[in-house]
Amino acid sequence: LQFPSKLIEHAVSEISRLPGIGKKTALRLALHLLKQEEKTTVSLADALIELRTKTVFCKQCNNISDTEICQICTSFNRDQSLICVVEDTRDVLALENTGQYNGKYFVLGGIISPINGIGPNEIKVEAFIRKFPNHEIKEVILALSPTMDGDTTAFYLSKKLKQFNLKITTIARGIPIGGELEYADEITLGRSIQQRIKYGED
Amino acid sequence: LQFPSKLIEHAVSEISRLPGIGKKTALRLALHLLKQEEKTTVSLADALIELRTKTVFCKQCNNISDTEICQICTSFNRDQSLICVVEDTRDVLALENTGQYNGKYFVLGGIISPINGIGPNEIKVEAFIRKFPNHEIKEVILALSPTMDGDTTAFYLSKKLKQFNLKITTIARGIPIGGELEYADEITLGRSIQQRIKYGED
Repeated sequence: LQFPSKLIEHAVSEISRLPGIGKKTALRLALHLLKQEEKTTVSLADALIELRTKTVFCKQCNNISDTEICQICTSFNRDQSLICVVEDTRDVLALENTGQYNGKYFVLGGIISPINGIGPNEIKVEAFIRKFPNHEIKEVILALSPTMDGDTTAFYLSKKLKQFNLKITTIARGIPIGGELEYADEITLGRSIQQRIKYGED
Repeated sequence: LQFPSKLIEHAVSEISRLPGIGKKTALRLALHLLKQEEKTTVSLADALIELRTKTVFCKQCNNISDTEICQICTSFNRDQSLICVVEDTRDVLALENTGQYNGKYFVLGGIISPINGIGPNEIKVEAFIRKFPNHEIKEVILALSPTMDGDTTAFYLSKKLKQFNLKITTIARGIPIGGELEYADEITLGRSIQQRIKYGED
C-alpha cells in the first residue's frame, strides 16, 4: 500500500502491531478516527496511556488493579478459604460474570507452554506457591483452559501443591476440550465451577 | 462484564467505540498493551494523535494529506486531463496500487445514501462541481462501488456534470479476474455479456 500521507502510514503501522489487526483493518480504523471529532481520538489515546501507566498488578493475586491490592482481595465478603488459579484477567472476568464463585483468585499471567518457550519462570508460579502454607486457604481450584498447555500447567501446579494440606480441584468438564475458557458461555462456565471435581479424577 | 479496574473499563469502552471492535476484542487489545513495554502504548497513542491533529484534506482533491496540496495533485507527471471520483482514501490507495492509472483524483468523503440520511450536502459534491468548467479536465471517471448508493451517487454526479463539455466514464463492471463464471451473480454476468468487449482488447 502506498499511503497518501506519512502520518497515516505511521498510524497504520502502529495500529497493525496490535494482535489480529492487519494493515487493511488498521487503515479502516485510522480513516474512521479522521472522520470523527478530534476529541474522540484524544480520549482514546488518553485512555490507552492511562491504562498502561497507571494500572498495577495486585500484590496479592496478580490481577490488574487500580490499587496496590485489588477490590476482590480486599473484600471481606469473599470466601478466604478458596483460591482459584487462572491464566489471565479475562478468565477472572468470565468467572465473575457467572455469579457462581465467591472465593479469591490468583492470576498466573500466562500458562506453561513448552512449544512457545514459556516455562514456570515466565509466569507467576513461584509467587503463587510462595503463598503456602497459608492456613486460611483450604482449596485450590485450577481453572485453566482444557488445552494441552492448560493441562501441563495444572499438572505442574498440582505437583507443587502436593506438599501442602490442600484440596486441589479443577473446574468440571462441560467446557469443550480444546476450547478457550474466556469464550465459554456463562451457564456452562457457572456449572463447571459449581461442580468442580478433585484434580486427577477427571 | 465487571472489570477489575476502572482504567481498564474506560480503555475498553474507548477502544470498543471503533468500528467492528466489540468489548471482548477491546479487552484483548487492552490486555495485550498491558503485556507490552510502555513505549509501545505511548507510540501508538502518539501516532493516533498526530494523525488526527496534523493531517489535512488536500485543498484540491480532498484526499488525506500531510500538506495543503497532496503529492498527487502537485505532481507534474500525472495526466491533468483525467479526474477520477472516488468515495474515500481507501479507493485512491486501491487504484494507485494497480499501477494502471495516472490521472488525478477527487475524494468525495462518502457516497449519497438516502437510507443512511446522507445527501449531496453531507459529502463533497459541491466542492467537486465547483471545479468546472476547468478546461484542463477532459474526462471524469466515476469510480464508485457498484452498489445502490454508488449508482445513486454516480447518477447524481453525471446529471450535475452534463452542463460541462466532458467525457463521463465509469469503471467497467464484470467478472473479476480469476473469478469462476458459474459463481458470478446474474446481474454482473448479464451486464458483462451486454457490455462485452472485443477479444484481445482487455
